[in-house]
Amino acid sequence: MNRSVVFRLLRQRNHKLNPARAFSSTHAAFRAKAVKVDSTMATLTTKTGQTVDRSSLESLVRRRLFFTPSFEIYGGVSGLYDYGPPGCSLQANIVDLWRKHFVLEEDMLEVDTTMLTPHEVLKTSGHVDKFADWMCKDPKTGEIFRADHLVEEVLESRLKGDKEARGQKVVVDEEKEAKKKKKVKETKVVKLDDAVVAEYEEVLAKIDNYDGDELGQLITKYDIRNPKTDGPLLPPVAFNLMFQTSIGPSSNMPGYLRPETAQGQFLTFQKLLEFNQQQMPFASASIGKSFRNEISPRAGLLRVREFLMAEIEHFVDPEGGKKHPRFEEVKDTELSLLNRDVQLSGSTKTEQMTIGKAVEIGLVDNETLGYFLARIQQFLLKIGIDKSKLRFRQHMANEMAHYAADCWDAELHTSYGWIECVGCADRSAYDLTVHKNKTGAPLVVRETRPEPLRIEEWQVNLDKKKFGPRFKKDSKTVEAAVEALSQELREKLALDLQQNGKIEVDVEGVGNGKVELDKELVAIEKRERVEHIREYTPNVIEPSFGIGRILYSLIEHVYWSRPDDEARGVLSFPPVIAPTKVLLVPLSNHASFRPLLQRLTSKLRRAGISNRVDDSSASIGKRYARNDELGTPLGITVDFQSVKDQTYTLRDRDTTKQVRASEDEILQAVKSLVDGDETWEDIRKRLPEFTGQEAE
Amino acid sequence: MNRSVVFRLLRQRNHKLNPARAFSSTHAAFRAKAVKVDSTMATLTTKTGQTVDRSSLESLVRRRLFFTPSFEIYGGVSGLYDYGPPGCSLQANIVDLWRKHFVLEEDMLEVDTTMLTPHEVLKTSGHVDKFADWMCKDPKTGEIFRADHLVEEVLESRLKGDKEARGQKVVVDEEKEAKKKKKVKETKVVKLDDAVVAEYEEVLAKIDNYDGDELGQLITKYDIRNPKTDGPLLPPVAFNLMFQTSIGPSSNMPGYLRPETAQGQFLTFQKLLEFNQQQMPFASASIGKSFRNEISPRAGLLRVREFLMAEIEHFVDPEGGKKHPRFEEVKDTELSLLNRDVQLSGSTKTEQMTIGKAVEIGLVDNETLGYFLARIQQFLLKIGIDKSKLRFRQHMANEMAHYAADCWDAELHTSYGWIECVGCADRSAYDLTVHKNKTGAPLVVRETRPEPLRIEEWQVNLDKKKFGPRFKKDSKTVEAAVEALSQELREKLALDLQQNGKIEVDVEGVGNGKVELDKELVAIEKRERVEHIREYTPNVIEPSFGIGRILYSLIEHVYWSRPDDEARGVLSFPPVIAPTKVLLVPLSNHASFRPLLQRLTSKLRRAGISNRVDDSSASIGKRYARNDELGTPLGITVDFQSVKDQTYTLRDRDTTKQVRASEDEILQAVKSLVDGDETWEDIRKRLPEFTGQEAE
Repeated sequence: MNRSVVFRLLRQRNHKLNPARAFSSTHAAFRAKAVKVDSTMATLTTKTGQTVDRSSLESLVRRRLFFTPSFEIYGGVSGLYDYGPPGCSLQANIVDLWRKHFVLEEDMLEVDTTMLTPHEVLKTSGHVDKFADWMCKDPKTGEIFRADHLVEEVLESRLKGDKEARGQKVVVDEEKEAKKKKKVKETKVVKLDDAVVAEYEEVLAKIDNYDGDELGQLITKYDIRNPKTDGPLLPPVAFNLMFQTSIGPSSNMPGYLRPETAQGQFLTFQKLLEFNQQQMPFASASIGKSFRNEISPRAGLLRVREFLMAEIEHFVDPEGGKKHPRFEEVKDTELSLLNRDVQLSGSTKTEQMTIGKAVEIGLVDNETLGYFLARIQQFLLKIGIDKSKLRFRQHMANEMAHYAADCWDAELHTSYGWIECVGCADRSAYDLTVHKNKTGAPLVVRETRPEPLRIEEWQVNLDKKKFGPRFKKDSKTVEAAVEALSQELREKLALDLQQNGKIEVDVEGVGNGKVELDKELVAIEKRERVEHIREYTPNVIEPSFGIGRILYSLIEHVYWSRPDDEARGVLSFPPVIAPTKVLLVPLSNHASFRPLLQRLTSKLRRAGISNRVDDSSASIGKRYARNDELGTPLGITVDFQSVKDQTYTLRDRDTTKQVRASEDEILQAVKSLVDGDETWEDIRKRLPEFTGQEAE
Repeated sequence: MNRSVVFRLLRQRNHKLNPARAFSSTHAAFRAKAVKVDSTMATLTTKTGQTVDRSSLESLVRRRLFFTPSFEIYGGVSGLYDYGPPGCSLQANIVDLWRKHFVLEEDMLEVDTTMLTPHEVLKTSGHVDKFADWMCKDPKTGEIFRADHLVEEVLESRLKGDKEARGQKVVVDEEKEAKKKKKVKETKVVKLDDAVVAEYEEVLAKIDNYDGDELGQLITKYDIRNPKTDGPLLPPVAFNLMFQTSIGPSSNMPGYLRPETAQGQFLTFQKLLEFNQQQMPFASASIGKSFRNEISPRAGLLRVREFLMAEIEHFVDPEGGKKHPRFEEVKDTELSLLNRDVQLSGSTKTEQMTIGKAVEIGLVDNETLGYFLARIQQFLLKIGIDKSKLRFRQHMANEMAHYAADCWDAELHTSYGWIECVGCADRSAYDLTVHKNKTGAPLVVRETRPEPLRIEEWQVNLDKKKFGPRFKKDSKTVEAAVEALSQELREKLALDLQQNGKIEVDVEGVGNGKVELDKELVAIEKRERVEHIREYTPNVIEPSFGIGRILYSLIEHVYWSRPDDEARGVLSFPPVIAPTKVLLVPLSNHASFRPLLQRLTSKLRRAGISNRVDDSSASIGKRYARNDELGTPLGITVDFQSVKDQTYTLRDRDTTKQVRASEDEILQAVKSLVDGDETWEDIRKRLPEFTGQEAE
């Protein structure tokens, strides 16, 4: 049983023991969309069986300008990254495919709402009060620490020192250690009491659940200080993770940069329902930047302050089991599921199961949730995610917001552990309800019942003429109290009235709190009421995608290096999302190649296939190696033979094999490969292989 | 000569008279990208010759959810808009076409840099100090006015009152007046002295050029008060238009939301140059949101606080006349040019001219600028902009930043007047230079000269051994003074040295400010220096697109209403950017239509053609009318005949004509129309017309 599972288990136990956790569990749920870096360490291997060497990969990503830290020439700002040309194109291709796969395929209503959001909206949604982390300040140095991270680091370091003192082998993640050393002083080799070890282990297990006061108590109790200077720290204070600003020239309209795109969609619900001609269910979708002012961002693209999200809000009738009309199409999709009970039992063993079965046995709450899980997997596989490094993990009860029915995360396995990249939650009617209550806007569906609803109920009739003179100024209060009587009570009172000719009703603030009403004033009868319109607040199923995290994980999944030369990295993006589809390589800078290159490039462009010419003076081999790192799947070489007979060689990035054929055949093959109609194997079978130059 | 031209003329004169304007002209240039609503009133007509009725159009745009004010259920926030499904799709299609037309066509290096920007970067760029407007506060009511707008409104209102008092006819823009009335009290009919009228006219003419002090003096001099309450106002203070926030948990890193995407591109220059294998020229590009905290946003999408920009930074060698390798391809493109001299002469008459000629005669400064003007026009026409409502206006000298060489705006004619939608400026080496000077980062190009440069120059040699003992602590100062001598002075001193055996050099702070050096200490000779590397800071040509403004103007350009029924609006978007390409309309809800609809929709989707089914119970005519307003160019009707023989009718939005043919023929026609290979006229000629139902 690995450690994180023990933690989770303890956490769960703790949650059950202490119902007061309900609040911090909501709090945790607010953060859930942000970050869930499962620290499970496991050696990650490439598809060729090599160990993923993160530092080589990071160097490639930087060298080829996929993304780099922002504002580097000004010293940088942590948690902010810029995408260079290949990263930007990769991101655009992922977004484009996302839009086709979800929005167009299902006629979703895409909206683009503003990032600037006034205070009141996020106050209502709960973000102003709950979207926060706890931080501690060193009053002397001014340094700021995220309280839970600090406690975690210090106690882990002490436990490590204890293990060393006991002469136990300490498994070390070297890179992590190297980073830590910059922050934390050398681990002290000090043996701890067994009881202290147990206490520390328990604290670490519960670390996600402490509130500020509790973290402060831990810091005092265990004398936790600034690890670098040993200086004492101030007690933890809440730090809201939203970037605050002020809208307009007067300072009376505080606002924030949105922490998620969801709120903008909820506020537009009414207009969207009308646009959809009042038809339910429907989904809205939004692709855009969101912002979180992390206290101490780390782990590269996985925890950043400004990031691209793609979110779907699928609005569904809460009655009728949340069926989905297209569930049939996906029901045989096999998913790798890590369910709540398995986690509780202390295991992380996933189970292969069709989504049809998972919904049937109630493991996944409903068809709509299940439908999206399957669609999420289809999308991730399409862009090139390695299926063996994808799992769906069900949230534990205490991870979810109190209102959520069920929640699954699509997690991707990377060198940082299992990373939450897509969350798929049932947000119930929570958001629409709070905004409706706050503003009075009818964020509801009103539909004519196919059959009017006939309701048998106890109705109370007051004789208003006699009522007023009798109760005078208290009339309204008494009337309201009577109207508020439950059906149950009405039934009982009807009997009283029949038997005694009078009833007694509790009315706060009138007389002694009890009021007597006789037959003259009141009648209670069972009658039928007919309801023609049904009004309800839809529930929301929300698949929420962190595009940056998916992009980073994808790069790790498609990365490998040539077995014959480890320095030569390759990114095997599927053609559909590769930043550039085709590299055009003239043998040299010779003028006779230019018209051919121009014709090829313009023909490819007209076919909508992105391509680049590399006519630098480097050898053909070097130029291809560079583009293997950029993930360009295809290469066309233009040589002197091409000038003579308009034949070209076409090279496959992954196998480095080449074929040679006429211009038309080559272009047709490129199109067919990019569209996914044929594989390289198909092409190799039908076009003659070429085994000439790829001079290194 | 219309009034705005008089104003411009006066402004220009003012600028020439008063060189102190240079600063406010920089200031104005900083704002130039933001807003330039030319108030020239002119009746705008649709392509069918109808007057554009803005209120009908606004109602359509709102009804069909192209865009609506954000946070409406919370009372709204001015200057913020949400795009609904058709607006969002229109925006995505415009951006997609932009990317193809510019980025892919020219191998530009697209980047995606962060919106959050630390203080120091925007301090260096000049935005912290200069990107501001002047505002006045009413201390009693707390209301805030943009100072220049307030002076303008009040003086214009007084001039109007004067005209009425003189019995002159006042031309009234009713809508503008209606809006004003809400803010300004009833115009007082008061006759003014002729001298006062002249003074007011002059002030209005110069209104863009006053700084805060001057605006304050005007407010005092003319006793300008809060128009609603007549209360006095505080003096104007500068209000920076950037949204401020704080990055990270400590408050020591102030930051802003970027006001333009350009800075992020400049900061990445060095990495991009390396990515481009040191080859010049090249362009970077970026599509993303920018932010401006307008004091009082108005004019709908034309002046907003959060907006989508698409910017290109084309880096070019300042030497060699800024030629462009592809200028030849565009040189015959005819543009409608409104040049600086024509504006100076008091006219707004545009001239049709090929860009080749404009560059040749020096009207447009260089080929690169000219190339982009032509490409901008091609882009705007592709998305459906009416060529007769497009002009390129050259900036007046005082509109440009002090460093700019030339600047042209693509302006679109709308019901708000001529609107600047694309700016195309030569920013020279300004931005790269200031960031280089601030950070020391080598934002330069270093290239090996094809031929080494041999420079004859006067070199000074000091005998360091004797120099030190002689000047002791002053050695460094004297040495620096000698090194700093100009070539001219060196030549003169060489002669002195030869003639007198000694020279006298000015050295501030040493002795009496003059130092004598003899032949023992110094030698000055003419020698040759050989320079192998050339280092230069590239100039930047910047086409900058306001996507929201283009989108709004486009909607006005393609809007018209059916002559036989003015209530039926039509948006004639070209198929390539229409939000939805095809509407599928079953005759009724009959079950037999469903399989046909499913087959059509999935075939269209596979061909990448967006489509929607409208199976609501409204009549076919009503359903088509709704989609005419959404700008859907094509409609396919599925009727009982379709069930029998798989033939369908295809309807053209603009003519409402229909043809009927087999499924394959219809789908092929749709593809051909959407791809722009055929026009509706072509289709009508080859497929049989259908004149059956379009029941209203």
